[in-house]
Amino acid sequence: MNELMKYPNSGKTYEKISTHDTARRGMSLEHDINITCQYYLANENADIHKKPTPITIVNVEYPSRNKAKITEAYFKVPSTTDYNGIYRGRYVDFEAKECRSKTSFPFTSIHAHQIKHLKSVSKHGAIAFIIIRMVHYDMDYLIPFSDFITFFESTKRRSLPYDWIKEKGHVIKRRIMVPCDFIKTVDEVYF
Amino acid sequence: MNELMKYPNSGKTYEKISTHDTARRGMSLEHDINITCQYYLANENADIHKKPTPITIVNVEYPSRNKAKITEAYFKVPSTTDYNGIYRGRYVDFEAKECRSKTSFPFTSIHAHQIKHLKSVSKHGAIAFIIIRMVHYDMDYLIPFSDFITFFESTKRRSLPYDWIKEKGHVIKRRIMVPCDFIKTVDEVYF
Repeated sequence: MNELMKYPNSGKTYEKISTHDTARRGMSLEHDINITCQYYLANENADIHKKPTPITIVNVEYPSRNKAKITEAYFKVPSTTDYNGIYRGRYVDFEAKECRSKTSFPFTSIHAHQIKHLKSVSKHGAIAFIIIRMVHYDMDYLIPFSDFITFFESTKRRSLPYDWIKEKGHVIKRRIMVPCDFIKTVDEVYF
Repeated sequence: MNELMKYPNSGKTYEKISTHDTARRGMSLEHDINITCQYYLANENADIHKKPTPITIVNVEYPSRNKAKITEAYFKVPSTTDYNGIYRGRYVDFEAKECRSKTSFPFTSIHAHQIKHLKSVSKHGAIAFIIIRMVHYDMDYLIPFSDFITFFESTKRRSLPYDWIKEKGHVIKRRIMVPCDFIKTVDEVYF
């Protein structure tokens, strides 16, 4: 049974996922990662934040002395990924994407400049990856950027096949309070 | 001779600084660091970005099919510093502030949660610092966060004295295309 859920401010409608795991039902990947990062921060495991959405501000009004109200602004195309920070002394950088297809993850889901950015930080020694949530299977995968870029640059396909994701990706588990426990997976893959 | 200059979108007015260095005249520290980061990125020296200003979006309109126009939004207090990224394999995190006083840098210039953030990333192994531009002297200083926090937590003063800044701070030089060449100073201090 699917219902539609509207998140405040996002303007997007998410499909509620039918699963017996009530904690996760209807939660977006971004929401789950934000909760996870808050947990890591509070427990001093890692210091990783979502970057604010970049916007171009055109007009600001001052209805009262202390309050600035933005009355005209536009979304900008982000030049970097959504998340970065530090874990075990290493710079960590990743993009997180939900995938609603059952068979593959389309490359159009990731902007060209985000791939360029992940390439650049990788060169500088970052732990760089992509988190893909396969919504239909209710599974989260960590894809090391090095594996992604090797496939991306050698294929004529326009998507990552789900079989490839299962083979090359590393499953991210959830636990209480930590709906997308990706640093556990980072431990296994990078340390 | 001082003139006033208004930067687009910032809503702030900057005093033009009288100096024979025309390249720098009237440029804000933020502008200079952004130019510098672009140079580092293009030359593959470092990958450091300014985080977008965090805002809370209340209303978005769609005047045409492809264009989303934000018609109501408010500035949020940032929970992290303005700049982070990677340099020589290390996570780098800093806040940049202009100081118009001739004698000291007031602690009120830095939010309490930014100090908390710099403390947290330092614990995780970051290269963390504050860049202070002493506008009157037209000098930029890199203050290692470890020195800053030691002074901050042991003093009853409400500001960093300029004498302390001169003693503990590390001068950041400018060169052509690189108006605030802070990674040179990072090299000297941290490597």
